[in-house]
Amino acid sequence: MIEAQPDAFPRRGGVEVLVAVGANLGDPAAQIDRALAALGAVPGVEVLARSPLHTTRPVGGPSQADFRNGAVKLRTTLPALALLAVFKELERQAGRDFDGVRDGPRPLDLDLLTYGDQRIDARLLSVPHPRMLDRDFVLAPLADLGVTEADLPPAAERPRVVADPEELRATCRAWVQRGGCRVGLVPTMGALHDGHASLIRRAREECDRVVVTVFVNPLQFGAGEDLERYPRPFEADLARCRAEGADLVFAPPVESMYPTGFCSTVDVGGEAEGLEGGERPGHFRGVATVVARLWSLCGPDRAYFGQKDAQQVAVLRRLHADLGLSGELVECAIVREPDGLALSSRNVYLSAEDRAAAVILFHALAAADRAWQRGVRRVADLLGVAGRIVAGEPRGRLDYLECRRAEDLAVLPDVVPDDGSAVRLLLAVRFGEPSTRLLDNAVLGRGELEGGV
Amino acid sequence: MIEAQPDAFPRRGGVEVLVAVGANLGDPAAQIDRALAALGAVPGVEVLARSPLHTTRPVGGPSQADFRNGAVKLRTTLPALALLAVFKELERQAGRDFDGVRDGPRPLDLDLLTYGDQRIDARLLSVPHPRMLDRDFVLAPLADLGVTEADLPPAAERPRVVADPEELRATCRAWVQRGGCRVGLVPTMGALHDGHASLIRRAREECDRVVVTVFVNPLQFGAGEDLERYPRPFEADLARCRAEGADLVFAPPVESMYPTGFCSTVDVGGEAEGLEGGERPGHFRGVATVVARLWSLCGPDRAYFGQKDAQQVAVLRRLHADLGLSGELVECAIVREPDGLALSSRNVYLSAEDRAAAVILFHALAAADRAWQRGVRRVADLLGVAGRIVAGEPRGRLDYLECRRAEDLAVLPDVVPDDGSAVRLLLAVRFGEPSTRLLDNAVLGRGELEGGV
Repeated sequence: MIEAQPDAFPRRGGVEVLVAVGANLGDPAAQIDRALAALGAVPGVEVLARSPLHTTRPVGGPSQADFRNGAVKLRTTLPALALLAVFKELERQAGRDFDGVRDGPRPLDLDLLTYGDQRIDARLLSVPHPRMLDRDFVLAPLADLGVTEADLPPAAERPRVVADPEELRATCRAWVQRGGCRVGLVPTMGALHDGHASLIRRAREECDRVVVTVFVNPLQFGAGEDLERYPRPFEADLARCRAEGADLVFAPPVESMYPTGFCSTVDVGGEAEGLEGGERPGHFRGVATVVARLWSLCGPDRAYFGQKDAQQVAVLRRLHADLGLSGELVECAIVREPDGLALSSRNVYLSAEDRAAAVILFHALAAADRAWQRGVRRVADLLGVAGRIVAGEPRGRLDYLECRRAEDLAVLPDVVPDDGSAVRLLLAVRFGEPSTRLLDNAVLGRGELEGGV
Repeated sequence: MIEAQPDAFPRRGGVEVLVAVGANLGDPAAQIDRALAALGAVPGVEVLARSPLHTTRPVGGPSQADFRNGAVKLRTTLPALALLAVFKELERQAGRDFDGVRDGPRPLDLDLLTYGDQRIDARLLSVPHPRMLDRDFVLAPLADLGVTEADLPPAAERPRVVADPEELRATCRAWVQRGGCRVGLVPTMGALHDGHASLIRRAREECDRVVVTVFVNPLQFGAGEDLERYPRPFEADLARCRAEGADLVFAPPVESMYPTGFCSTVDVGGEAEGLEGGERPGHFRGVATVVARLWSLCGPDRAYFGQKDAQQVAVLRRLHADLGLSGELVECAIVREPDGLALSSRNVYLSAEDRAAAVILFHALAAADRAWQRGVRRVADLLGVAGRIVAGEPRGRLDYLECRRAEDLAVLPDVVPDDGSAVRLLLAVRFGEPSTRLLDNAVLGRGELEGGV
């Protein structure tokens, strides 16, 4: 897919390049003429042909004048990135304000549509232009140059679905190394809900390329756990990734993630002890091993995890620091149902009655939070307040309920010291048979539970 | 250090740029005039001043005519990389042949010396120009423009010495992401010898930037091993890295590699069993953990390891595959003394007598290799031939001597099957007190031991 570097020189003799030109401020025709004359004077650029200008309605943006649009065919021996820089300079010289409104009126617009037969997938430049075939104001002038839709290479499909770890690695490396992109990683087990969507959206805002991994990792399931029945609605997940603007969905079969001969394991000490680590022996070894592998394959600038699995985040923050994994770990807030239930892929297992009862996790946290706000600092008292709420619901069986230091989940003394330490309350409760384990947690006194009922 | 991206636009108003011009073919003055006229016509480029041309002797390359050299001051709003592309196009238009001889005669040479006050450290471009201050043919014309040595920023020192893991990570990431560089990694415990030098040289040939790590890793030493006395001649190591052209030497203190709270471990299964893994419990856990960390911090395109530690290479190849570490692992041939002894940092421990006796490892391998060439395929016979040589030297105490499948060090059947399987003979022998363990190995029948005595 990524076949060319944006800063590479084309072969001897250069390449043919298609360019869209447009303007709707000032004297569009004169500005376009001036720009093309200047472009033709650049060493290594020859203007081969230009279309007449078409008058077209603006697409998107504020109310504004009609555009004059045309297409130009160049031959160039300059790298695509150098050509792009010259375009931007010509736009600037025509008076374009790059801090202005998106899709607003402009005195000059030069867009690189194609660069020979190359595909370039970089931070500053994607060719063939991803939206070119959707735009009549591009296609009509191109037709004047004898270029039809059939002559134009299709843009790459997004998100690209990848099953092969080597392909994930090569694609991400090329984005970073050849394309200068910042890559965001959102590791998931699929069955995506609004919590996952919030991670993908944040990655989309902060990164140039977004990778979502969808893999139900057998290593992190113990005997008798729900590996087999874990939901795997791949088509819905893919649609969700597409809607949120993911660039790549990595959905490997188990035998590609763990091929014959695979025999490495990653263990994290302190943070993996107790809580989930106590209830699910080997669970965090499985998590650390799969995340080390996914993280290394992708090499992200940022990897996004939800706070609902607070101990998992603590384990992975430790893993990230200790192994020196790339970039940074970004922790995102829990997304909740209107009644306060934390979103989880496992919520679908709940019967209607258990679903209604499951709100006790949130209520327990909220009660402890109110106690904290009243000044309660004895751990036993905070646990008592929360525990009574869980105990009052016969459908739920408590696995654990603990207060820990928020930062690294270290065990606290009997009374929380008055040193600014943040305290996290964590609990796990089972419902139904076969049982569904639900987790929830909150840092007390931080307003994390506001807006709930 | 890496402060600017080569493809980034400068701030509004642009930057001042110093350029060296030169030519010694055709009509140098006319070609330079033509190039500067064309340069001035590029949108976003203004020629502010140019020096008179100086006549200078060529530096390096074949016998050739004197150069005419000058300096030019530009103002530009183009990114450095775009300017560089225009330079190259102008050189091409002047008739320069880029496939020609290095440092040969040329009709036009345009070199970017500085780009505002930015430092750019990229694959295609390093500014300030690294060798600018060493070149009279650059400095003299610059003086005509009123630019003295004191005005010029010093080039970055190479190799850069880094102790902080975060700085290693950030520097390597910037080389890859902003600079488009291929990074080579040579992990060592220091006490560098010609074997290490061969790794650095290969990395230098194959990569844009070369990182050498120098760290005596306590995790991989067992109780009673030679952690304390392991040689640490850092100044000599640094000089060696400089001589071989390394760009960065990472030499962290133990407390930066393993800060308080560090608690992750990496284990590799099959390949780490037996041989060294049997003799040194925990050794490969220490190796895998430190290499996972160094590899992740650096994120290399290629990491180089010597074949002398054959089991280590097998373990790390497995680690690389299982964790999906970046790039590829490159295995390099053993470098030997003239008498056949494999180079090792531990050879310095040997007394003169033990040093003389240590050649038995090579002789044992060579004897087994000759037996293999005569058609011997019974493992016991191959081991017998090699073992008799070790047993004949009373100064040496054999730790192990084994034949394994070369590829993954799997145990072989009694007779090596005739299926093209490559067989590696590995041995460890102790000398002296406190004892020095020496390792050696070879794939039989591959000519690996030719040229030895």
